[in-house]
Amino acid sequence: MRHQVWQANMDLQRHQLVTFTWGNVSGIDRQQGIVVIKPSGVAYEALSADNMVVLDLEGNVLEGDLKPSSDTATHLALYQAFPDIGGIVHTHSPQATAWAQAGKAIPALGTTHADYFYGHIPCTRALTDEEIATDYEHNTGLVIVETIGSQDAMAIPGIIVKEHAPFSWGSDADQAVHNAVVLETVAAMATQTLQINPSVSAVNPALLDKHYLRKHGKNAYYGQGKTDKK
Amino acid sequence: MRHQVWQANMDLQRHQLVTFTWGNVSGIDRQQGIVVIKPSGVAYEALSADNMVVLDLEGNVLEGDLKPSSDTATHLALYQAFPDIGGIVHTHSPQATAWAQAGKAIPALGTTHADYFYGHIPCTRALTDEEIATDYEHNTGLVIVETIGSQDAMAIPGIIVKEHAPFSWGSDADQAVHNAVVLETVAAMATQTLQINPSVSAVNPALLDKHYLRKHGKNAYYGQGKTDKK
Amino acid sequence: MRHQVWQANMDLQRHQLVTFTWGNVSGIDRQQGIVVIKPSGVAYEALSADNMVVLDLEGNVLEGDLKPSSDTATHLALYQAFPDIGGIVHTHSPQATAWAQAGKAIPALGTTHADYFYGHIPCTRALTDEEIATDYEHNTGLVIVETIGSQDAMAIPGIIVKEHAPFSWGSDADQAVHNAVVLETVAAMATQTLQINPSVSAVNPALLDKHYLRKHGKNAYYGQGKTDKK
Amino acid sequence: MRHQVWQANMDLQRHQLVTFTWGNVSGIDRQQGIVVIKPSGVAYEALSADNMVVLDLEGNVLEGDLKPSSDTATHLALYQAFPDIGGIVHTHSPQATAWAQAGKAIPALGTTHADYFYGHIPCTRALTDEEIATDYEHNTGLVIVETIGSQDAMAIPGIIVKEHAPFSWGSDADQAVHNAVVLETVAAMATQTLQINPSVSAVNPALLDKHYLRKHGKNAYYGQGKTDKK
Repeated sequence: MRHQVWQANMDLQRHQLVTFTWGNVSGIDRQQGIVVIKPSGVAYEALSADNMVVLDLEGNVLEGDLKPSSDTATHLALYQAFPDIGGIVHTHSPQATAWAQAGKAIPALGTTHADYFYGHIPCTRALTDEEIATDYEHNTGLVIVETIGSQDAMAIPGIIVKEHAPFSWGSDADQAVHNAVVLETVAAMATQTLQINPSVSAVNPALLDKHYLRKHGKNAYYGQGKTDKK
Repeated sequence: MRHQVWQANMDLQRHQLVTFTWGNVSGIDRQQGIVVIKPSGVAYEALSADNMVVLDLEGNVLEGDLKPSSDTATHLALYQAFPDIGGIVHTHSPQATAWAQAGKAIPALGTTHADYFYGHIPCTRALTDEEIATDYEHNTGLVIVETIGSQDAMAIPGIIVKEHAPFSWGSDADQAVHNAVVLETVAAMATQTLQINPSVSAVNPALLDKHYLRKHGKNAYYGQGKTDKK
Repeated sequence: MRHQVWQANMDLQRHQLVTFTWGNVSGIDRQQGIVVIKPSGVAYEALSADNMVVLDLEGNVLEGDLKPSSDTATHLALYQAFPDIGGIVHTHSPQATAWAQAGKAIPALGTTHADYFYGHIPCTRALTDEEIATDYEHNTGLVIVETIGSQDAMAIPGIIVKEHAPFSWGSDADQAVHNAVVLETVAAMATQTLQINPSVSAVNPALLDKHYLRKHGKNAYYGQGKTDKK
Repeated sequence: MRHQVWQANMDLQRHQLVTFTWGNVSGIDRQQGIVVIKPSGVAYEALSADNMVVLDLEGNVLEGDLKPSSDTATHLALYQAFPDIGGIVHTHSPQATAWAQAGKAIPALGTTHADYFYGHIPCTRALTDEEIATDYEHNTGLVIVETIGSQDAMAIPGIIVKEHAPFSWGSDADQAVHNAVVLETVAAMATQTLQINPSVSAVNPALLDKHYLRKHGKNAYYGQGKTDKK
C-alpha cells in the first residue's frame, strides 16, 4: 500500500502535473481502516515508499516520521463521504487550475470528457471567510462533498475547487492519478474549444451516455474486459 | 504487416499524439484481404508486433488473442469506402479534438496545410441518437464517408468527427500517422491564426494548388523523387 | 557561494525559463559584502562555478576573468534597497514577459499565487527616455524599488518590468530561482483564467491570507518545519 | 562549410522548430561563390555533412547526389540581394507561421524583440497568381527583398511571408538559426501579449534603441566582446 501510493505520487510527476511539491496522492485500505499519504513539502526526489505517512481515518499518524500533507483533512473528508473511492489526488495542474480560478465548471464538450466523466466537471462555491479561518482543509473537503451532492462520485471522479485547484479520485491511487491526467487534458481541450467557438453547447446526451457506458458499467466493451478501464 | 502496424502505433506515441491508450492505427493488405489493428485498451508499453490483431474485412478475428480496438468498425467502413487508403489513424490529439468539439472545419490558412490537404479539413455532422444507439462505431465511419462525399480521400487525408476527435489516413499505416501529425499541427496553427486575426480568410487557391501539387501528383518536385512524399 | 550561484543558474535552464543566454542569477554574502553573478552572454554549457564573477556592492570585479552580466547594476540596486534578499533572478520567461509587454500587474487569482505572493505581482511604470539613456540598468533597479515601495519585498518576491521582463528574488539564489518558476507558472495560469472568464475578480483576501500564511511566517504549518518553504 | 550547414540544420531540429522535413538551412561562401544547402525532403536522421548539396549562385549543383531543397531559389534570391548575410533559415515554426497565416507584421512589444530586431518583423504582401504560377520560389525571395526595401537586412534578420511561414538570416548559418529561434519566441510572446492586452502599443523607441544597440554595433557592451552577439 505504501509502495502503491508512493508509485502513484511519482506517476503524478511523470505525467507533468506537478510543479515542485504542489501535489499529493493518498490511498485507503478500508478493511484495515488506514490511509497512506505523501508527506508535506518533501521534494519528489526525496520520496520513497518508506516515508509515506500512515494515518487512521481521524488523521492520527500511525506510522512515519514526517508530517502528512497539509491537505490531509481534505482527503479524509472525501474518504468519509464517498465509500467507493480508494484513492485521491490533488494537484495545481495549470489548465484545470485556470478553470478553478475562473470559477466555472468544465462543460462536457466531447467524447474525451464523456469517456471518464458522466457530465460536466463541477466547480465548488467559494468557501466563506469562516470556513477559511477554521478547519480550512476539512471544509475544503466538505464543500466538495456538498457540490457532488447526490451524484455518484465514481461517475464524476474529479472536481475543481473555486479559486484553488482540482481534486480527483478513483477506485485506487493509480486510478485517481489517471483521472487527474484526464481532468487536466479535458480542461485544456475545453479552453481551446471555447476559443474556437465561444457559443458551443454541451455534447449530445446520447453520445455522453454511449461513450461513458462503453467504458464503464456492466455492458462496457472497451478494453480487454479483465479490469474496469475507468 | 503486423510489425509495420505496431511500429506505426508506437510512432503515434512518439509524436505525442496519444494520452494513455487513446489512439489506434490499422493497416490493410488488400490483396490478402486482411486488416491489422491495435488491440483495445492495451498500454503502449505492453504492445508488440505479436499482439496486433488480424481481421478480415468483415471484422472477424483471424489471428490474435486480444480484442481489437473498440473503433475497429470505423476503420473497416473507411477501408470499404476508400479503395486507395492503406492505413488509418484515430487519436484524441488535443488541438484537432478542440476543433471537433467546436464543430468546425479547419480552414486552409497557409502552405503548411496546403502541402498535405487539398482544401479545408472537414468536420462531420453530429451523429443522430439512432446512429449512436446502434452500430455506433460503424456509423462513425459512414458519417465520415458521407462528409468526404465525392472528394478524393487521398487529397483530403483526414477529417474531424463532430463532438469526438480526428481520423486520418494515407497510403499505408506510416503515412496515416504522418497525416495525423500534420492534422494536429495545422489545427494548432489555425487556432493561433484566428486568435491573431479573427477575420482572416482562406489561403489563395492558386497558392493551395501550387503547394499541394509541388508535393503530390505527377509533376511533384519536392523531395528526392523516389517516393511520393505525401 | 560561487558553486551555489552556478547551480542556481543551471537550475534556471533546467526549469526551462531561459532561451539561449537570456537569464542570470546572482547571490549575495552580506557579511563579506560580495555579490556573485553569471558572466555576460556565456552559453550555459560553458558555465562553471569557476567562471562566476565576484563583485563588491559597487560593482567592482574582485575575482573572475569575464565581464559580469549586463544586468549587474539592476541586481546591485535591489540588494542595496532590500536588505532581506539573498539572491536575484532575471529571465525573459515567456508567460511573465507577455504580462510585462502587456504592461499589466498579474492579479492574484487563486491559491497557487497566494502560496508565494502576498498580493498581485506588480508591473513597474515604463522608464523615461532619460532613465533609458543614462544608467539604464541601474534605473531599472530603481523603478523596481519605487514600485515595491513600502511593501515587504520578501512577501512580493518578484515583479515585472514594463516592456521588458520579470525579476524575482528570495532568501538566497536557490529561492530566487524557485520564485522565478512560480512567477512564470502563475503568469500562465492568469492568462488562461482570463481567457475562460474575462470578468474574474481577485481571490478572496481571506483565502490569500490563509494560503500565504500557512506557508510563511511564524505560524506556518506547510512542509516539515525544518526550513521556511518560501 | 558543409559541416557547418549540416550542424545548423541539426540545431534547427534540436530547437524544435521543425516538424518532419519542414525546414532548411543554407550557408554561403562569398569568396568561393558557393552555397551549401540541405537536400529536399530528407529526414533529419538521414542527414550528414556529406549529403549537403553544393551549388553556385545560379543554382547549378556543383557537388552532391541529391536534389537541393525545393526552396533553394528563395535562398539564392536573398543572397543576391543582401550582400551581408551569410546564412538563411526557412521553417514552418508554429507561432511565427500563425502570424504569417494571419497576414500581420509582428510588432516590437518589448526588449526580447528589441535585442535582435530593430523594429517590427515585417509580413510580405501575398504573391500574385502570376508570381505563384511561374518561378514561385524565386518570387518568394523577391517579395521578401521588396518588403525589406531600403532597411538594413542585418538589423531586421527575419521576415514572415504571408500565407506561408518565416525566413530568417544572419552572418552565418548558425546565426540564422539563432534568429529563427528568436523569431519564433517573440512571435509567441506577441500573441500572448495581445491576448492579455489587445490595445497594447509598440515598445518605446528609446528602449528599442537601447536594447538593440547594447547588443549590436560598435558600442555594444553585452557579452564578452569577442564576437558580435547578434
